[in-house]
Amino acid sequence: LCSSPSNRSRPLSRVAVSGGTHGNEMSGIYLAKHWLRNPMELRRGSFAVTPFLGNPRAIEKCVRYVGRDLNRTFTTEFLSSAEAEDKPYEVVRAREINQTYGPKGSAQAFDFMFDLHNTTANMGACLIVDSEESLLPMHMCEALLQYKYFEGVTFLSSHSGGRQGSLPMQCPPILSPLCPIGTVFPAFEIEAYKITGRMDYPRYPDGEISAMVHPKLQDKDFLPMNPGDPIFQTFSGEEILYEGDTTIYPAFINEAAYYEKKVAFAKMEKHILFNSLKILLHPLPAPRMD
Amino acid sequence: LCSSPSNRSRPLSRVAVSGGTHGNEMSGIYLAKHWLRNPMELRRGSFAVTPFLGNPRAIEKCVRYVGRDLNRTFTTEFLSSAEAEDKPYEVVRAREINQTYGPKGSAQAFDFMFDLHNTTANMGACLIVDSEESLLPMHMCEALLQYKYFEGVTFLSSHSGGRQGSLPMQCPPILSPLCPIGTVFPAFEIEAYKITGRMDYPRYPDGEISAMVHPKLQDKDFLPMNPGDPIFQTFSGEEILYEGDTTIYPAFINEAAYYEKKVAFAKMEKHILFNSLKILLHPLPAPRMD
Repeated sequence: LCSSPSNRSRPLSRVAVSGGTHGNEMSGIYLAKHWLRNPMELRRGSFAVTPFLGNPRAIEKCVRYVGRDLNRTFTTEFLSSAEAEDKPYEVVRAREINQTYGPKGSAQAFDFMFDLHNTTANMGACLIVDSEESLLPMHMCEALLQYKYFEGVTFLSSHSGGRQGSLPMQCPPILSPLCPIGTVFPAFEIEAYKITGRMDYPRYPDGEISAMVHPKLQDKDFLPMNPGDPIFQTFSGEEILYEGDTTIYPAFINEAAYYEKKVAFAKMEKHILFNSLKILLHPLPAPRMD
Repeated sequence: LCSSPSNRSRPLSRVAVSGGTHGNEMSGIYLAKHWLRNPMELRRGSFAVTPFLGNPRAIEKCVRYVGRDLNRTFTTEFLSSAEAEDKPYEVVRAREINQTYGPKGSAQAFDFMFDLHNTTANMGACLIVDSEESLLPMHMCEALLQYKYFEGVTFLSSHSGGRQGSLPMQCPPILSPLCPIGTVFPAFEIEAYKITGRMDYPRYPDGEISAMVHPKLQDKDFLPMNPGDPIFQTFSGEEILYEGDTTIYPAFINEAAYYEKKVAFAKMEKHILFNSLKILLHPLPAPRMD
């Protein structure tokens, strides 16, 4: 789930849903392909939903990326760099996506974008937004949880899409097509997690990993990690303990795609977000059922 | 776990343990790397254990293989084909491995080989042997279960390594270095599964997958699948039922690496193996603890 910090009240008209930003994350790929075959399933009365495949070459090869991680390539630096034939495919593709659904921050950009991912970590269904200043996505998360579309958790990233270069456009947030039309969002209180840092694996001097995620930590995403808890186990069997001085909440524990990024897990803070605003959506016409 | 059908009583002297036959299956890769750094951990009193990495180029790229699946390349056809520069890397590598630890079926071949793999299916720790005629590996499986080294299941493949081209050498089975020295194997009764076929995903006429593993089947490896049970769910939500006429036991359900092989799950029969032989191992000297 992607959005941006700005808030607005004008009606939205265009939503994009992408799968395969990472070419080996199958749920979004097959959903996007399904919607491309069956576009009526995404039709709504008051706005258009456009599915697309993020990284077709990586999907073809069933790999995360072919040149560089597309979801780290939507930065101003890459989007505005001079064209050159030796650029990785994903730089070219990021520009295409930005031209088609953006450009980021421009008036002609799509109003909202969902980007569908998988993780090998035990994180359940997870909604990732890029700023807690985005009120409506936060309400949406709460509504999705409330309506039991997901038994999931909300997760706040500390970095904006712009800084890290993930897919979201710099465009205002709007209501998910999943939500019942005319939903009144009550004041909400929502459990959320915010990335504060990342933990690498222990390594030998030559850089090779020397320990694995401790069996007691594996699959314990979003549960408290206290100082002194075992977090790694060397291949000889010794325990390595968490040396922080506060309780944190890890996520992306042992995510397979993050070995290359030197991340054994993300360190997170737990927050309870409360907002007293009530947001009434425009009462929309019923969706066409044709 | 790999072995061969022949049985013998002469002492064994050389065991090989490989990781990274598939370059993205990390457990065996890190174990083999660990043992290469710490060879004393594999030292035993009466036989030598040699760790090695199966597919270094695939490990480097963290992919299953770079040219073709190495674990389908140990066939006589590939091992004996004419040398040519345009051969996939894995054909060259299979020959190297066969020359170093085999050749298959020859007198100088290693006595036993473990090949360490991962699966994305919910199969627990799983011992795969290539023939139920291999008595000692069967006993070993039972002993491993009995000694609780694994909370696993035994799984019998219907194909021999030679036919499918997986790694095992054509050499006699011997006792695992994991088993206590001098273990007396009692007559055993062991639950085992034997592959009888494979089930592909439902597909559109153009070959694209049209349904996913049904949520009720996901993670239910080794549990009974009865005629009429839901096995797939189309992306529009329709259920597809199992149309067989007998109960089977699926495994490798939704294994990520088998999408390319057009396998949604392996169909298996459940067997109770019973053998009244008692096999007494040579009483071996205690392992050196240096």
